Amino acid sequence: MRLVGADDVTAAERRITGRVVRTPLLPCPELGDALRLDLWVKAENLQRTGSFKARGALNALLALVEREGPPAGLTAFSAGNHAMAVAWAGQVFGLPTVVCMPPHAVPTKIAAVRRYGGEVVLTDDLLGTCEALAAERGFYLLPPFDDPDVIAGQATVGREILADGPAPELVVVPVGGGGLISGVAAAVRAAAPTARIVGVEPVTANAVGHALRTGEAHLPVRPRSMADGLAAPFAGRHTLAHVRELVDDVVEVSEEAIGASWWELLDATKLLVEPAAAVGLAALRAGLVEVTPGARTVLVLSGGNTSPAALTALG
Amino acid sequence: MRLVGADDVTAAERRITGRVVRTPLLPCPELGDALRLDLWVKAENLQRTGSFKARGALNALLALVEREGPPAGLTAFSAGNHAMAVAWAGQVFGLPTVVCMPPHAVPTKIAAVRRYGGEVVLTDDLLGTCEALAAERGFYLLPPFDDPDVIAGQATVGREILADGPAPELVVVPVGGGGLISGVAAAVRAAAPTARIVGVEPVTANAVGHALRTGEAHLPVRPRSMADGLAAPFAGRHTLAHVRELVDDVVEVSEEAIGASWWELLDATKLLVEPAAAVGLAALRAGLVEVTPGARTVLVLSGGNTSPAALTALG
Repeated sequence: MRLVGADDVTAAERRITGRVVRTPLLPCPELGDALRLDLWVKAENLQRTGSFKARGALNALLALVEREGPPAGLTAFSAGNHAMAVAWAGQVFGLPTVVCMPPHAVPTKIAAVRRYGGEVVLTDDLLGTCEALAAERGFYLLPPFDDPDVIAGQATVGREILADGPAPELVVVPVGGGGLISGVAAAVRAAAPTARIVGVEPVTANAVGHALRTGEAHLPVRPRSMADGLAAPFAGRHTLAHVRELVDDVVEVSEEAIGASWWELLDATKLLVEPAAAVGLAALRAGLVEVTPGARTVLVLSGGNTSPAALTALG
Repeated sequence: MRLVGADDVTAAERRITGRVVRTPLLPCPELGDALRLDLWVKAENLQRTGSFKARGALNALLALVEREGPPAGLTAFSAGNHAMAVAWAGQVFGLPTVVCMPPHAVPTKIAAVRRYGGEVVLTDDLLGTCEALAAERGFYLLPPFDDPDVIAGQATVGREILADGPAPELVVVPVGGGGLISGVAAAVRAAAPTARIVGVEPVTANAVGHALRTGEAHLPVRPRSMADGLAAPFAGRHTLAHVRELVDDVVEVSEEAIGASWWELLDATKLLVEPAAAVGLAALRAGLVEVTPGARTVLVLSGGNTSPAALTALG
């Protein structure tokens, strides 16, 4: 399978620059001292729609428009960040968007999709409903992660990390279906062949790790984690190929560790992130990531779609 | 009195660039829609030492070194952000630093000064102790706000706002002793003569507004506010001159309004700020700032030295 290459990432940069936030790479000297690392965070919680998903969704839509012209509309299935990103991308281009969400989706995320002008269909048959919309109305079914254009969009996170300073020696990335780490690895590996790239999943939502160990893409039980953004029930074909080729290790962290790191990140970085974004720090804290003292290290903070009330509940 | 000019700001930029964080100017589309403004925030809570104070302290030290060579050490009086900024500036240059803090200073801020290598003297005679150190040991007493080099350092906030997009039509800035708004106004006014520049103080800590109304620099009673970073007991001579010449209005907000906006900023921007940084949103919310619908508006978020625990207590 062909992996996302430098030209794909450059094309994605050209398409989405100016429409997404050029998120900052921020130094974390105090936290870094405690971990004996030259620690930085890439703040994708400050991205449009509150997560990196805006990059991949917008790039996939714009690449489609270049190839085939605009679709009649957009559709997608997601309980959260991807749903918001697709609704936003549709709004940017004035396309009707129908997002299929499970009946148990969080009300605030349903409201966010509607705020971006998306129509919400609550259904247990997520894929079937989306496929019917695609077949009957010519809507483009925008995939959540397992797509070269989506991966190339997420890869712009890696390009920006490289543009903002010396090449990192260690990059730690949250892993759900694997779209973000596939993109970041494609961008970073090309420029920094010796960089260590490590993915982190919740123990209880480990589709990619499971697939790497067993060869089976689908998890045997439904994943559940406070890091709900990482609860993909399966790993993608494209994303697995990228992880196998470009990523050094994928490790797993406990729910307790995620909660503690979530709180610590807010205190240390002044950034409100969603629990999914805290898995990287949790893995470093737990000693699960092989590190060289003083290494220039980047933690990708994947999103911020949570609320102060959720934090208060934890505190 | 000569105000800080373009050359002073350019010199400050040259001195401190690369040593301070180039903080992001972030769009706030949802909050902006609610206020009918094209709203952006300048995230100085992500600055080194957690506030804009790092800019002014470092510029004042470097300007002194250019003029006279390095001092024997640094000293300053402050209960909070300026104390941390001076200790940090001293650490950057390997200078001994003694910070005088009041006995009631917050333990976490005392600890932060020590983490930056500063020695802390707890005393009620803040100015006298600092002056003795300056006289006896040749330490440089770095002023908290009423100094042209400090103001020029804070002005780099304004320069960065101008560099990151079209000139703002409205800039809203928290006001304590007036250093930040003096600098921001000096930078913004030069490039955007018609921009509206508004300062915001707590009703209960309104040294600048009091001085503008009465001509009396000192407040009659000791200021107290949850926005402790703004509780300056007096306005400066330099800062008052800048505010009189360059600022359109200074308004005052209640403690209740500050608390509500503090919480809302975290929810809407994903940024943990200190209450002082929330006064601008509070003023917009209360209708205290004259606005043109759709105006490109920048809220300066002055700092982030607070804790998730403080937020939890409010929630």
